[in-house]
Amino acid sequence: MKRNTLFPKLNGIMHGGDYNPEQWLDRPDILEKDIEMMKKAGINEATLGVFAWSMYEPEEGKFDFSWLRKIMDRLYENGIYTILATPSGARPAWLDEKYSEAMRVDAYGVRNHHGVRHNHCMSSTKYREKVEIIDRKLAEEFANHPGLLMWHISNEFGGECYCDQCVCRFRKYLANKFEHDIEKLNKAWWTTFWSHRFNSFDQIEPPYENGENSVMGLNLEWKRFTTWNMTDFMKHEIHTLKAVRPDIPVTTNFMTLYYGLDYHEMCKELDVISWDSYPVFHNDYEAPEYTYLYNAFNHALMRSMKPGQPFMLMESAPGLVNWQPFNKVRRPGNHKLACFQALACGSDTVQYFQWRKGRGSSEQYHGAVVDHLGTDDTRIFREVAEVGELLKKVSDVAGSVVDTPVALVYDWDTRWAIDDMRGMAQSTKNYDKTCVDIWSELLKLGVDADIISQQHDWSKYKVIFAPMMYLLQDGTAEKLKEYVANGGIVFATYLTGYVDKDQLCNLGGFPGQGLNEVFGIISEELDTLYPTDQNGLIWKNGARIRTEVKDYAEILRVKDATVLATYESDFYAGGAAVTCKQYGKGYAYYFACRVEASDMRALFTQILSEAGVKTKELAGVEYHVRVAEDKTYEFYLNYTTEEQYLTNVNGTELLSGQGLDGELVMAPGAVAVVEKQIGE
Amino acid sequence: MKRNTLFPKLNGIMHGGDYNPEQWLDRPDILEKDIEMMKKAGINEATLGVFAWSMYEPEEGKFDFSWLRKIMDRLYENGIYTILATPSGARPAWLDEKYSEAMRVDAYGVRNHHGVRHNHCMSSTKYREKVEIIDRKLAEEFANHPGLLMWHISNEFGGECYCDQCVCRFRKYLANKFEHDIEKLNKAWWTTFWSHRFNSFDQIEPPYENGENSVMGLNLEWKRFTTWNMTDFMKHEIHTLKAVRPDIPVTTNFMTLYYGLDYHEMCKELDVISWDSYPVFHNDYEAPEYTYLYNAFNHALMRSMKPGQPFMLMESAPGLVNWQPFNKVRRPGNHKLACFQALACGSDTVQYFQWRKGRGSSEQYHGAVVDHLGTDDTRIFREVAEVGELLKKVSDVAGSVVDTPVALVYDWDTRWAIDDMRGMAQSTKNYDKTCVDIWSELLKLGVDADIISQQHDWSKYKVIFAPMMYLLQDGTAEKLKEYVANGGIVFATYLTGYVDKDQLCNLGGFPGQGLNEVFGIISEELDTLYPTDQNGLIWKNGARIRTEVKDYAEILRVKDATVLATYESDFYAGGAAVTCKQYGKGYAYYFACRVEASDMRALFTQILSEAGVKTKELAGVEYHVRVAEDKTYEFYLNYTTEEQYLTNVNGTELLSGQGLDGELVMAPGAVAVVEKQIGE
Amino acid sequence: MKRNTLFPKLNGIMHGGDYNPEQWLDRPDILEKDIEMMKKAGINEATLGVFAWSMYEPEEGKFDFSWLRKIMDRLYENGIYTILATPSGARPAWLDEKYSEAMRVDAYGVRNHHGVRHNHCMSSTKYREKVEIIDRKLAEEFANHPGLLMWHISNEFGGECYCDQCVCRFRKYLANKFEHDIEKLNKAWWTTFWSHRFNSFDQIEPPYENGENSVMGLNLEWKRFTTWNMTDFMKHEIHTLKAVRPDIPVTTNFMTLYYGLDYHEMCKELDVISWDSYPVFHNDYEAPEYTYLYNAFNHALMRSMKPGQPFMLMESAPGLVNWQPFNKVRRPGNHKLACFQALACGSDTVQYFQWRKGRGSSEQYHGAVVDHLGTDDTRIFREVAEVGELLKKVSDVAGSVVDTPVALVYDWDTRWAIDDMRGMAQSTKNYDKTCVDIWSELLKLGVDADIISQQHDWSKYKVIFAPMMYLLQDGTAEKLKEYVANGGIVFATYLTGYVDKDQLCNLGGFPGQGLNEVFGIISEELDTLYPTDQNGLIWKNGARIRTEVKDYAEILRVKDATVLATYESDFYAGGAAVTCKQYGKGYAYYFACRVEASDMRALFTQILSEAGVKTKELAGVEYHVRVAEDKTYEFYLNYTTEEQYLTNVNGTELLSGQGLDGELVMAPGAVAVVEKQIGE
Repeated sequence: MKRNTLFPKLNGIMHGGDYNPEQWLDRPDILEKDIEMMKKAGINEATLGVFAWSMYEPEEGKFDFSWLRKIMDRLYENGIYTILATPSGARPAWLDEKYSEAMRVDAYGVRNHHGVRHNHCMSSTKYREKVEIIDRKLAEEFANHPGLLMWHISNEFGGECYCDQCVCRFRKYLANKFEHDIEKLNKAWWTTFWSHRFNSFDQIEPPYENGENSVMGLNLEWKRFTTWNMTDFMKHEIHTLKAVRPDIPVTTNFMTLYYGLDYHEMCKELDVISWDSYPVFHNDYEAPEYTYLYNAFNHALMRSMKPGQPFMLMESAPGLVNWQPFNKVRRPGNHKLACFQALACGSDTVQYFQWRKGRGSSEQYHGAVVDHLGTDDTRIFREVAEVGELLKKVSDVAGSVVDTPVALVYDWDTRWAIDDMRGMAQSTKNYDKTCVDIWSELLKLGVDADIISQQHDWSKYKVIFAPMMYLLQDGTAEKLKEYVANGGIVFATYLTGYVDKDQLCNLGGFPGQGLNEVFGIISEELDTLYPTDQNGLIWKNGARIRTEVKDYAEILRVKDATVLATYESDFYAGGAAVTCKQYGKGYAYYFACRVEASDMRALFTQILSEAGVKTKELAGVEYHVRVAEDKTYEFYLNYTTEEQYLTNVNGTELLSGQGLDGELVMAPGAVAVVEKQIGE
Repeated sequence: MKRNTLFPKLNGIMHGGDYNPEQWLDRPDILEKDIEMMKKAGINEATLGVFAWSMYEPEEGKFDFSWLRKIMDRLYENGIYTILATPSGARPAWLDEKYSEAMRVDAYGVRNHHGVRHNHCMSSTKYREKVEIIDRKLAEEFANHPGLLMWHISNEFGGECYCDQCVCRFRKYLANKFEHDIEKLNKAWWTTFWSHRFNSFDQIEPPYENGENSVMGLNLEWKRFTTWNMTDFMKHEIHTLKAVRPDIPVTTNFMTLYYGLDYHEMCKELDVISWDSYPVFHNDYEAPEYTYLYNAFNHALMRSMKPGQPFMLMESAPGLVNWQPFNKVRRPGNHKLACFQALACGSDTVQYFQWRKGRGSSEQYHGAVVDHLGTDDTRIFREVAEVGELLKKVSDVAGSVVDTPVALVYDWDTRWAIDDMRGMAQSTKNYDKTCVDIWSELLKLGVDADIISQQHDWSKYKVIFAPMMYLLQDGTAEKLKEYVANGGIVFATYLTGYVDKDQLCNLGGFPGQGLNEVFGIISEELDTLYPTDQNGLIWKNGARIRTEVKDYAEILRVKDATVLATYESDFYAGGAAVTCKQYGKGYAYYFACRVEASDMRALFTQILSEAGVKTKELAGVEYHVRVAEDKTYEFYLNYTTEEQYLTNVNGTELLSGQGLDGELVMAPGAVAVVEKQIGE
Repeated sequence: MKRNTLFPKLNGIMHGGDYNPEQWLDRPDILEKDIEMMKKAGINEATLGVFAWSMYEPEEGKFDFSWLRKIMDRLYENGIYTILATPSGARPAWLDEKYSEAMRVDAYGVRNHHGVRHNHCMSSTKYREKVEIIDRKLAEEFANHPGLLMWHISNEFGGECYCDQCVCRFRKYLANKFEHDIEKLNKAWWTTFWSHRFNSFDQIEPPYENGENSVMGLNLEWKRFTTWNMTDFMKHEIHTLKAVRPDIPVTTNFMTLYYGLDYHEMCKELDVISWDSYPVFHNDYEAPEYTYLYNAFNHALMRSMKPGQPFMLMESAPGLVNWQPFNKVRRPGNHKLACFQALACGSDTVQYFQWRKGRGSSEQYHGAVVDHLGTDDTRIFREVAEVGELLKKVSDVAGSVVDTPVALVYDWDTRWAIDDMRGMAQSTKNYDKTCVDIWSELLKLGVDADIISQQHDWSKYKVIFAPMMYLLQDGTAEKLKEYVANGGIVFATYLTGYVDKDQLCNLGGFPGQGLNEVFGIISEELDTLYPTDQNGLIWKNGARIRTEVKDYAEILRVKDATVLATYESDFYAGGAAVTCKQYGKGYAYYFACRVEASDMRALFTQILSEAGVKTKELAGVEYHVRVAEDKTYEFYLNYTTEEQYLTNVNGTELLSGQGLDGELVMAPGAVAVVEKQIGE
């Protein structure tokens, strides 16, 4: 893979984070100490200006960027580069006071009062106008500053708005989508049911909480529209900045599996993907391992959005956060592990929210590098400084990427459709968990799968896991057929291909649109189990592992697939539960019921082996590989509480500088980065 | 009993259900296949037009019934009759767009947006006008169609509206009720408390969530008004239809123990009672038996509304439903049991929602006879077709009825009053459960009690069970006295006769209005137990069965009743807990605390025996009897998982055609219908 | 201590309660029977007119006090005095109909409908005007009635309003507070965060649910404003009454630890403190002892508001209440214990809500002395009459007070600030419980501590317990320093001194504002534990008591304090957990983590002993002392279920009249009041 360095100026990994000096302008002593301590911590980047609108433009039309220029200059003089944010994530009070249309309207049609953040209407022409002005000013002032690395568009886009301007844009969006033919919409939304037919696009309203929310197609289009509109707003900001200087890259900070926006759509407008990672470490509801695996899943999702290019860990908390149900401090060493996990998964940055805790308002206790105590002799500061040192040792990793023959399909439309689907059991649908669990099981086998949409290029992968692929986008069925026919292996499960892109049920047997051909089965019934219900699998190959069935079990008619396992009990005892069919040059696996991902390990190993994908004995150590043209970088993270021995590890361990000759001993909490020349 | 056949044209039991061909008009192949498969399944009825307004009247004033006529004709040609629905349950978009007053206003005073269904204002003059037009058109078009059996008014009436027109009607309703004398209302509602006195009826508002909801009388009248207003709306529809042709019977589909409407009032306007039965079979929170018993209770409630006449099972799901927390598929055989339970309880129909699953919208996964697969070789279809066959064998049952010497009083006002009563423990009031449990215990003894209101004719019963009869309607106390004095036996419990019809506490001792005379006791205190509290009963007759007291225990003063049991512990240990007093020619039993219904079995057996009501050994088999002038039909349903042997069963078993000579062996899941000539 | 008798006319303890004869004006027989039964029960007071507005002024401007005069006269003739309430707690319907501004607006900005009670806007000029008129009329009519003892202002003040008038007053309040300088507010509220800067006071809105609620300073000021505004409303009423006759004392009835109002502010405007006590006796979630202790804490809080003066138990339920989740009847004897607990803690009254149960509306089942049965031969009546008898025997107690060398700091601002603080674990913050538990542990040692604010005079106490004193009011840090320097002992815990009065974090180390100097430690991190986390303490003195750490643990840097205990495990094992530093003439204890209060018993005993405060062996008997110039009255309450033996008890037991010579034997449920001459 071609090395693809995001920020050549940095000569290595970015180490930095959000910095809000505007809160301390009356304390020059503190600002001076910040620079001094940043250098001590190996900081080479600061993200400035997030939410600084009221400091940029204290009154409408009166601008003041002098304070920011001073800060950026001073940082730059000290070797610290800037990522500069547009301030659209929060509005000054004067703006809402004068232009109430900038404030969102909720799902009951009630306009919010001024307050908090992330609550602006994306459609408001007035707000777009004000944002454009401040963004252009900012670009004109700073686009050519030598310290500027990148634009950070707004902050953590999210939410939705039901105001009149949004309703109007929604109608136009629908009219375009359905080619100005209301009957096309009526058909797609099955509106004859419950007398829901529309006579014109102007009759359509968003799915208000106290309005029309029983039309699946409408609900789904509203979510798609929200993504489209949010992206349009973001594009508006990007356009303004790029108009001043097109070569400064742009990003916006995504959030962990954020529900309300289809990141697979939004990512197209960004130069680089970045996200904010706040795993709930040390919690009481899951094994510690799972917290890391879930985080790795997110990293892989972000990474896969821009193939062949590193991503950025835009925010993370060095100590604790302040919004979890239990805000436990991070245990010693956890910080290092989390930072290197990001790198291992393909990030070229380690960034924090934030550098220094503010004195007031709702995030005053959100973890930061520097505490209210104000000194650098704290545990947290020392851990950050240690990471700063270590990052210098792995500078060479920058620009390398993850390259993998396996992918898992994860799809926002499917997610929304499954959740909105009225059936099964609302409390156990668990699309996300199912995807994460399967992906994690692969990672435990040493396979760091990409996470892709139905629209991605599938042809580069040897195996594709497509759990619960309930909704088929236009073209997906054909694509899957072709993929398998050409030698690909696909692993699908219960709930595959029930509906089309409008959530209309496919007729003629599930999985629909001809996929029952590919899998050689038809799913006749979907049984939903109570948590207390019991069933199990009997494997045809004689394996006696107890495989508990839970939540869902489809009753299959097998046409021409091989049955790998059958149900153990209930009225469908003996019926097929797991099947495989050779189709063209490839294989199509169907797992008709839900079991623990770990109970699929043997099957996964077999599938990967058939596909020629190597698995690896890892003894609980997390493992990733990044590659460049000439080198591979193997990452090992031991987040177990015991020492682990790994074999077949060769190359130079970069943190210790030691050469490895096959054996790697890892203390609890240890991290290793093993560099190897390709061909070695 | 006189045989009373609902639909002589059918020559037997109706087998049919909701059919929505308007969703498939672009698929004539499917419509054709429907007819073919209906015949295969023994279908002789289709319910058409529920929610078809936007197809009847696609634009205001433009009507199109041609599609419906074609369908009805085609069905009729194939021996399938039609029940035709008025479409008022859901409004076309154009109607709400133009007449926003048709949409409901919620309990905060906020008008809903257009959407979903069952959300129209019952008071809206404009809506009534539009409904009248469409209903009249429908009647004019189809009242004389030879296939038409019945009108189905709207759909599952429910909900309430707080709009200005409703408020206005509510005030008029109150003024009429209190004879235009506000002081009568002030007295009835005890408004001197908290300064709640009204000066005029125009000051009264509904119990808004953010308004006046602490006046019990107001809360109760609002519920009564909602019933009255909904009934008035329904009458308006009935009147329109009957004006065209008076002899077509009308029904509307009731729902299981629906809370918001007093069906005992609404039923008066209907020719036939029908209801939609969706028991949660195979759940994880109750014994399977209880699911059937609860369903039987509902059947009995519906049956008792029109004595001497069969009712209709208007909707049921052959497979699964889609709105329960866990939508499990029905196990094989369950369908047959459920269908015959309806018959056993007095229904002359077995109908489904629906014939064919639609492709989209919120009920796309609601069970139907025909699945998205579209074929007749599914398990569900086969089970439906089997029922179709069996129904033909019991054609003779049609028109026979249930006739029973025992009744249980179940009353909507009491239900509402108990729930609204501020005291006891909100979480354990359980009026419904208490009634269902007692009724079920009787059924297990072979006694299929009627379920009646305080206003019904009580004189025909030998025993009346009146659990938790908290609210006494005008006249009830006198009626009860007279009933017992004349030889009736009444069984009452804690919480009897606390309030009058306005929820004013009766003075002078509970049970009030002189009932303490009848029972010979006064309830001095009502103790509410925490779930962890323990108490028990000691039976005077020496029975050593452990009887756990839970939730509620009244502390009694016994005047002239016989004490049957006393409390075991706590400061009222030794105090009377169960009493009986002979009053006139009858007996008045008082059970002052809550115990499991099964712990009252011995007492019930004794009471029934005193009354000369026969009980029966049933070994877990559910048992009902229908009678006609000349015959009895005994129904036996074995929903246990074991074979059961019953003795003393004589007659002809209709499903097998075999003669029985005393012994009936029932396989698990088996159904038997034993016909006997009266006098045999 | 100087004897301070509240109502000399009574010659002893007040025994009475709410009486609502206006509900029974059409039943003169009942009113007559009331008098008769009151005398039987030893009643000498009746609280009249609470919520009687619609009877005082049935139509706007038409007044009728004749019925009240008759009642007051009749009561007075029978030796029963009156406390007369202003009726502002609930409005007549005509008032809301005409002046909608009197109704509150909720936190979403929506105005309530007319209804319930306690829902008037405190800012409404029109409502204040109407209240002034009715209050003045009332005063003019009854201020000189010989039976009048006191004014009862409104009822249970509470709630808040977000209407325009309130918003306007809030802005003025803020402008005054911040000296009309918006930059002072911006700094105090840290508004640079999230662009929250204000340009003028007119931009500020209350913390609407759908508005600005992330600015801690704003949230806190809104709560302070609500207290200020409610107090201002109350003062308006007081002023009206006192203008007619200044010497009639005023009170209002407080509620148990009411959250929404800072009683430490409101109490300043009252002549006497009174409160409504409704403990949840016999519940299933705590030991019976704890129910009494929690109630005693409330008594002590109320008592401490007016040092050197008795308080009043304004409302209590003789039987049960009707609003708890489980409304269990009070067990025999519990009533006597509860009444004497009030006396023991410093009350000079025992009053009930209410005398007679009304027939209707939401409190028809709230316990009262006389039930719907209407007679005096009930258990409840007998218990009340018994208390009436006993109170006569302790008449001499009236006017004596509690005098104690120990205090606990309990502070509304701290309470609000901790709850609003975004961090830790919302579900385990438990400021109240922590204070109550520590106070209770002291009471179990025989130490009846006062409960004071940060503003009280601290100098009179030997030991001050200040748990979780998160927020430091201006001056508190200095006061604490001085208090300790002068020889006081202070006991503080984790979470001390994090923020200043505006909720800005103190810089330079917690506890801030120099308190880390006093305690000799800095809290570097605050760890939040999941309920499943485990840690413990190791005591330096070798004590091997197992001390479980839960919820919170601070990681300390010890500067110059003595370490008394360290953590047992986790990464901060061995770190200081409990410290003590001598500072000046006093000692400053710091308990850095949360443990059960009982686990601090040994430490408390040691601290009290160091301070020369006597503790007492009590064997589970609750103990309080009241003093007058010449006498002490020791109260002993045995609410255990066993007989208890106490030694060192001397004097005359007033209830039995017996002299005690060192030994007191108490039956379960027994009460003893031992009078001793001072010096005896």
